[in-house]
Amino acid sequence: MTEPFEPTLAPAAFGDTALRRRVQAALDGKTKPQGALGRLEALALQLALAQRSERPRLQQPQLVVFAADHGIAAQGVSAYPAEVTRQMVLNFLAGGAAVSVLARQHGLALTVADCGVAAEFEPHPMLARLKVPGAEHGTADVSVGPAMSETQCHGAIAHGRQLMARLPGNALLLGEMGIANTSAAALLMARLTDGPLAVCAGRGTGLDDAGLARKRSVLQRALLANAGATAPLQALAALGGLEIATMVGAVQQAAAQGRVIVVDGFISTAAVAVAAALQPALLQRCVFSHCSQEAGHRRWLQHLGVQPLLDLDLRLGEGSGAALAWPLLESACRVLAEMASFESAGVSRSST
Amino acid sequence: MTEPFEPTLAPAAFGDTALRRRVQAALDGKTKPQGALGRLEALALQLALAQRSERPRLQQPQLVVFAADHGIAAQGVSAYPAEVTRQMVLNFLAGGAAVSVLARQHGLALTVADCGVAAEFEPHPMLARLKVPGAEHGTADVSVGPAMSETQCHGAIAHGRQLMARLPGNALLLGEMGIANTSAAALLMARLTDGPLAVCAGRGTGLDDAGLARKRSVLQRALLANAGATAPLQALAALGGLEIATMVGAVQQAAAQGRVIVVDGFISTAAVAVAAALQPALLQRCVFSHCSQEAGHRRWLQHLGVQPLLDLDLRLGEGSGAALAWPLLESACRVLAEMASFESAGVSRSST
Repeated sequence: MTEPFEPTLAPAAFGDTALRRRVQAALDGKTKPQGALGRLEALALQLALAQRSERPRLQQPQLVVFAADHGIAAQGVSAYPAEVTRQMVLNFLAGGAAVSVLARQHGLALTVADCGVAAEFEPHPMLARLKVPGAEHGTADVSVGPAMSETQCHGAIAHGRQLMARLPGNALLLGEMGIANTSAAALLMARLTDGPLAVCAGRGTGLDDAGLARKRSVLQRALLANAGATAPLQALAALGGLEIATMVGAVQQAAAQGRVIVVDGFISTAAVAVAAALQPALLQRCVFSHCSQEAGHRRWLQHLGVQPLLDLDLRLGEGSGAALAWPLLESACRVLAEMASFESAGVSRSST
Repeated sequence: MTEPFEPTLAPAAFGDTALRRRVQAALDGKTKPQGALGRLEALALQLALAQRSERPRLQQPQLVVFAADHGIAAQGVSAYPAEVTRQMVLNFLAGGAAVSVLARQHGLALTVADCGVAAEFEPHPMLARLKVPGAEHGTADVSVGPAMSETQCHGAIAHGRQLMARLPGNALLLGEMGIANTSAAALLMARLTDGPLAVCAGRGTGLDDAGLARKRSVLQRALLANAGATAPLQALAALGGLEIATMVGAVQQAAAQGRVIVVDGFISTAAVAVAAALQPALLQRCVFSHCSQEAGHRRWLQHLGVQPLLDLDLRLGEGSGAALAWPLLESACRVLAEMASFESAGVSRSST
């Protein structure tokens, strides 16, 4: 299972010091004190380097909700029953979910990818059927063995790459849905960062104290049952989820295509962390939209050395945080494209 | 000078526990775990109560940039020369400033209020001439005496109220421009919160260490020269600025009209703090868009007991932070108006 995991990264310009200098000079020449737009300026620079352009432009942004079910849900690790995954897919398609509303607000094309939901859906123009043979209805129970076979994981990654190969535009916003998928993400965090479950595993969508204790004990068993899966892709197969593996492929392909990748919360961070373990340079194309309320997320972002844009106590997933942050990316591009310079506007510069 | 400072607050519903319960129930009934949209849900509740409606709607939002000059600028308390105030007004009108770009992005009507810029401008459809007799070109040097007479301050407040009386819509976004106006805001913070200048006075648009030390020493003289001005309106006249006083009137009128008020950075916080010292309930109508990089801002927000939405190291003013946060207010309204409920979407509820 080597082939699908070595896509070539699109040539970005993060090492192009001449372009970096030109973009920074353009930002410094805008009619504002140097650096006064704070993190928006860093974002503008990142987008410019990602697109190798002094005038980055975001086109036809795609928000994909990767959905799948998890065998471990049967162990009572979520506040919600597993059937909610299926119900929420229907809600996404009907336009009533939070991410549906936010995608409409910001003109984001929404695709729902069925990566292994425990249901069969009628065909729908927004729905991509990306089920993997043998795991059509979700992963196996990770508390007793691997969640996926390596072949299934490989298949999910390939699906993610194929999906991105056919979606237009130059930006991918990551979303996901899957009851119990904070468990899968917590297991990946514990394995990839060597962190304790007390840090990595949180309340998900709303477990109480007893539920959280049960979740951590189930996850401890899962780590033991999959002790040998230490390399990133082994860990992904053994501990991850079908929506996470598909997202890994989508992230790899999006990076290969030169897209900007907008990361949502804890689960999409798991996918990006796996992809970045294989290709660290891919992180430069990622904009981390927010720090969620899920316990381990802040720590994982620190571990990756990245800083999120928003901190609004979100813990919904679906891509809702990515969608909420989207206007900031547009603003960053507009600052470079539309703001006047000191010279063009005849404004005096600072004396210092 | 009593009359203009007692506008009646529009009847809001912050004490209406029945409405609060209905809105909270509507939020809890949306297809998401309870509270999973974090601070966006608190924002939706605030907007609903401010508008006395389970379906708040934002209409014809007005971003006003209040601009004026400051006599204290002659003491070298800013990194920029005073003529930049005039130059930036022209830049706002020409559409090249950061706030111009962001207002266009989000469909915010932009008005520039000349509250005492040291210049005379040609008439322009976006420009409101709100100069006050005797202070047409800015305040007096606060380091040797009061910045404004009480009559001038009264006049500026009245102008702000008159401006809002004629602007349409139900939301006001605060912006400002005035070289040296972080000095005026720092003086107001020091007086109103009884805080030391080491906390209240920061680098503004980019002072170096020597400049910051000079600024603090000048401001110390200003506090001594105006030691008797302790009541909020006395402090506003003696220590404030014409754009800040005009903003106080605009905030009072906007609150009286039942508008939502989106506060920007350090200087607009000063105006709101003065208005709230007179009418504390007015804070309930205010959305604090961001915490700026200016040293005292975080502390002042804490002192007011409010939490900002964004934290992006901005220190530009102009209303740029208010404009950047605007889509979050729209999202909050859309969550209430457009998201499906568990019942309407047939989604199972949490087991806890």
